[in-house]
Amino acid sequence: MNPTRSPLTALRWDGTVLALLDQRLLPGERRWRDARRVDEVIDAIRVMVVRGAPAIGIAAGYGAVLAAQHRAGPGGFDTAGWHADLERLAAARPTAVNLAWAIDRMRRAAAAAGPGVVPALEAEARAIHAEDLAQNQAMGQAGAAYLAPGSRVLTHCNTGALATGGWGTALGVVRSAWAEGRIARVFATETRPWLQGARLTAWELAQDGIPVTLIVDSAAAATLRGEGIGWVLVGADRIAANGDVANKIGTYGLALAARAHGAKLMVVAPSGTVDLGVADGAAIPIEDRAADEVWAAVGAAPRPAGVTVANPAFDITPAALVDLLVTEKGVLERPDRASMARLFGG
Amino acid sequence: MNPTRSPLTALRWDGTVLALLDQRLLPGERRWRDARRVDEVIDAIRVMVVRGAPAIGIAAGYGAVLAAQHRAGPGGFDTAGWHADLERLAAARPTAVNLAWAIDRMRRAAAAAGPGVVPALEAEARAIHAEDLAQNQAMGQAGAAYLAPGSRVLTHCNTGALATGGWGTALGVVRSAWAEGRIARVFATETRPWLQGARLTAWELAQDGIPVTLIVDSAAAATLRGEGIGWVLVGADRIAANGDVANKIGTYGLALAARAHGAKLMVVAPSGTVDLGVADGAAIPIEDRAADEVWAAVGAAPRPAGVTVANPAFDITPAALVDLLVTEKGVLERPDRASMARLFGG
Repeated sequence: MNPTRSPLTALRWDGTVLALLDQRLLPGERRWRDARRVDEVIDAIRVMVVRGAPAIGIAAGYGAVLAAQHRAGPGGFDTAGWHADLERLAAARPTAVNLAWAIDRMRRAAAAAGPGVVPALEAEARAIHAEDLAQNQAMGQAGAAYLAPGSRVLTHCNTGALATGGWGTALGVVRSAWAEGRIARVFATETRPWLQGARLTAWELAQDGIPVTLIVDSAAAATLRGEGIGWVLVGADRIAANGDVANKIGTYGLALAARAHGAKLMVVAPSGTVDLGVADGAAIPIEDRAADEVWAAVGAAPRPAGVTVANPAFDITPAALVDLLVTEKGVLERPDRASMARLFGG
Repeated sequence: MNPTRSPLTALRWDGTVLALLDQRLLPGERRWRDARRVDEVIDAIRVMVVRGAPAIGIAAGYGAVLAAQHRAGPGGFDTAGWHADLERLAAARPTAVNLAWAIDRMRRAAAAAGPGVVPALEAEARAIHAEDLAQNQAMGQAGAAYLAPGSRVLTHCNTGALATGGWGTALGVVRSAWAEGRIARVFATETRPWLQGARLTAWELAQDGIPVTLIVDSAAAATLRGEGIGWVLVGADRIAANGDVANKIGTYGLALAARAHGAKLMVVAPSGTVDLGVADGAAIPIEDRAADEVWAAVGAAPRPAGVTVANPAFDITPAALVDLLVTEKGVLERPDRASMARLFGG
């Protein structure tokens, strides 16, 4: 493995087309889906062709460029139309703040651009992408330093190259730690209902030759008790001003089980995931996705009348259960409102 | 709903054939599978045509009768051959002690029978079945008394009519409590990898008109925090002398999350599930099932080389996390070695 660049990427930009590796089809099939208009990017985010908070932010940046290309005409740039496009883009998924954060960056870039708005926006989108990769690698180094040689770790969902600009957040720490001999084995939860762990994380780790054991989500507590796991490594979709973390459903239960067994919880996320505008986790909107995403596992049988499904895509882990927050701006042990404000405020 | 008898049953015995409702096909298809020889019963237990600790015990009783019918010939009863059949039957699955317990009862019935061994064994198997139903209904009443009117409860796996002689253990408490107006809603975990919750529990409850919300297993902690759940109700596959409980994988994580939120954990199991021969949970053998049971959810894609799967079917919940143990012999609050010995010893 090249330690500075993962062989995997889920986003490619050629100036007019955003190609997205369709993550719904992995690992069985590698099919790229081309987006030439912002509405195709919106759809890809909504149906999870692309997923993972950082990757969603990067896709949104390029989506804003595609929108700008279509709003630039002989009569000048249709600023109002472009901002309306971005409103729709921002609404594609509600929980990950990286989407709103990237769109906000694109709006500020447009405001600062003067007449050459489209090239300025393209440069900004490429910068978002490149910065994410660089931030991932910085976080990887910073987080890996906390792992003892030969560590056994547990991770949830997919936070790797596929979820980011190309290295990973929590899985970026695993990649960096593996390169330094600090990883003996990774336990990956399958991560229902979408199976990001089984379909994406196990595949990514296998490609890099990192030993991985797949478990069902509900085996995590027994695994934490019996397998000598030192760290639980997860990403984040939004982090509130007090350090509460919104992440993939199941993270909160993992955090409780980790605390019960003396394993530590490391949350790895770029500073774009921090939202000082929400006071705490209770103020973070939690996306409730379709019942069919859960029921489909049963097969062709119709859902019996009277059976409802709750399918929250995320949960909130209170800051008190976060042992370490790793960002590209620095590392916080047991983050709280004061330390969050010092690192990310102003 | 008739409060004394569930409309569902998964086992039918007509004197020469044990018919088992194939639980791998539910809820899409109701197909009965006939067993006429003990080896067909062994296979049905192993591949989970029949599952649930009490139902496995009942099926084993009838399996012992089928074995006896084939070991009875003009030359007399082949006692050694029959005991060898029972050895193989006992090895079908390792964790649930009800299997060993039922086989032990059948051996003792044979020893006491004298010349009419086959009719005596059939009477014993029918007694095991009938007693289980009666015990379930007694436990249902006893457990329901702890639930306040309008309770919201959470349950894991399937512990209903399909898992037992026809009423249920934890789901028997739900049935009894529903009849008394004590249940407002049941949250059912889907229970990977086999989806007993989605396929069986949701279907059973829907048939009885009991409101049920299905969630993925990893949503349990967030559900316990946000949904005002008073009790987590589960069954058991084996209970050690100190009160440690082996039950479906995921029970331990639920117990930790319940304790963190002030929800109480009720374990409902007949006394045949208690094994005073094992000192504590560490001595209970945990079945590790095939990797494919987990990987199959990914679809046709082959499992990448380097990805291993751990598929423990059960985990151990320490007695200290059990708020209430409900059996047909009585109820124990916070069971421990001393109270277990008083209720089940000697």
